[in-house]
Amino acid sequence: MTPDELVRKIRDDRAHGASELACQCLAGLADHARSARARNASLLTVQLVALAHRLQQARPAMAPITNLINHWLTAVEKESADDLEVVRQQAIGNAQWLIAESRQAVSKAASHAAALIGANKTIMTHSLSSTVVAVFELLTPHARAIVTESRPPAEGRRLAKALSELGITTDFITDQQMGLFVPHADVILVGADTVAAEGSVVNKAGTYLLALAASEQGIPFYACFESCKRSRFAPADIVLERHDPDEYDAPRLPNVTSHNVYFDVTPPSLVTAWITELGVSRERGLSA
Amino acid sequence: MTPDELVRKIRDDRAHGASELACQCLAGLADHARSARARNASLLTVQLVALAHRLQQARPAMAPITNLINHWLTAVEKESADDLEVVRQQAIGNAQWLIAESRQAVSKAASHAAALIGANKTIMTHSLSSTVVAVFELLTPHARAIVTESRPPAEGRRLAKALSELGITTDFITDQQMGLFVPHADVILVGADTVAAEGSVVNKAGTYLLALAASEQGIPFYACFESCKRSRFAPADIVLERHDPDEYDAPRLPNVTSHNVYFDVTPPSLVTAWITELGVSRERGLSA
Repeated sequence: MTPDELVRKIRDDRAHGASELACQCLAGLADHARSARARNASLLTVQLVALAHRLQQARPAMAPITNLINHWLTAVEKESADDLEVVRQQAIGNAQWLIAESRQAVSKAASHAAALIGANKTIMTHSLSSTVVAVFELLTPHARAIVTESRPPAEGRRLAKALSELGITTDFITDQQMGLFVPHADVILVGADTVAAEGSVVNKAGTYLLALAASEQGIPFYACFESCKRSRFAPADIVLERHDPDEYDAPRLPNVTSHNVYFDVTPPSLVTAWITELGVSRERGLSA
Repeated sequence: MTPDELVRKIRDDRAHGASELACQCLAGLADHARSARARNASLLTVQLVALAHRLQQARPAMAPITNLINHWLTAVEKESADDLEVVRQQAIGNAQWLIAESRQAVSKAASHAAALIGANKTIMTHSLSSTVVAVFELLTPHARAIVTESRPPAEGRRLAKALSELGITTDFITDQQMGLFVPHADVILVGADTVAAEGSVVNKAGTYLLALAASEQGIPFYACFESCKRSRFAPADIVLERHDPDEYDAPRLPNVTSHNVYFDVTPPSLVTAWITELGVSRERGLSA
């Protein structure tokens, strides 16, 4: 894959969450380190840094892409060597290490969530989070699920398929029915694309509505994510991704403007707990 | 149309709101009174009463169908005559009078709403209510709209088309984006299928989520409807319509049950005002 192809692939991917895409970015940087033609070590470093910045800019709303690539850049720049082959191997090794760390963080966060929720509970979720899938994998078959369609592009259908294969009894609903099904849930569990400095959860549009219904009906609302999803920005400074309204075949009519904002922001007042690889925090400041 | 065809048409109609369907029931009863073969007046009355009850049972969740047909039945039974032709004409006349009254009530309720909202406001709505359309007709071109897709079956697309033709500047969004667009609205205005005794608004699924977001963000939430939509039942006693999940091509998978509940219930605590032909009420007890 050329750098251009990689950047385009990351930019246009609607199927994967932020953690998975961050790992794909690192894997792509490792591939580039492996195959790039460069006359010397510093020219390779320049190429790699440029690609890293382009990948960060491809999905600026996804904190793990920003954060994991920043970690990688710090290591690459700190270890700057004169030998081309050493730079290549360090860049590859650092990417692989960060990918493994990220996967382990997801797995640990899921363990904390599974322990907090416990067996034989009905877990309601929105969108498709690899961390939430990991929680179901830990609890199966002693869990039930309520899954929303999560349009567009309706990634909840893929979650329903995964849960079906795990043997988890699942209720599948349109997003509009969320308020009706919250009282049938013991707990709401969602992933996150980014978590703002003060604890707001940036996640697939509709998450905020689910959190409102949970709060009004007294059902706990948990967000589970690896800690590299924390952003140093306030919610107002996080640009929410917008995609082409053609994705849902929006009407094209005079006087009508159609929108396709992908994420919404759930304020900390609606979040019962934040769960990361570091543990469970019930404090807005994300002390865990 | 035979009685069976009429009952089936009312039962399967997903395109029209409760007021419109109630008027179609009355028009169908008038047609039946006009064309039914009956040997005498009392046999015609028996036929008409039987059809009226079948129509009520076709959509038990829609209060105006129950209520307007009850008004009609009361008149038909009170005026019982011995002459077949007199019974026919009374049944037709009463249906026509009730239809005209209902249309006038919708129009008056819309006038009250338009006066309350005023010119140059952004009005956000969910689903397609003929009463809400009447409000836009009164305010055009001095209004803006935010319209949700309202799946399934996405009747918000028809509303966007109607507003486009009225020349009203409209933002069209998926239902998932409701929380993101509430802060751009001056007021939320929805119709109702039924309003429970204590003021809960039974309307298209998703209305409750919109009301929660409006309440949290301090945007007024108005329900506008003709008073015959008031039900004597408590919300817990109102059966919410469920339709075939195939309507949204729901997944068919082992362990997965798909749902298609059409209505949800917005509690009175989230409603800023109830607007009917009788005026504007800010009291939960619907005193207006």
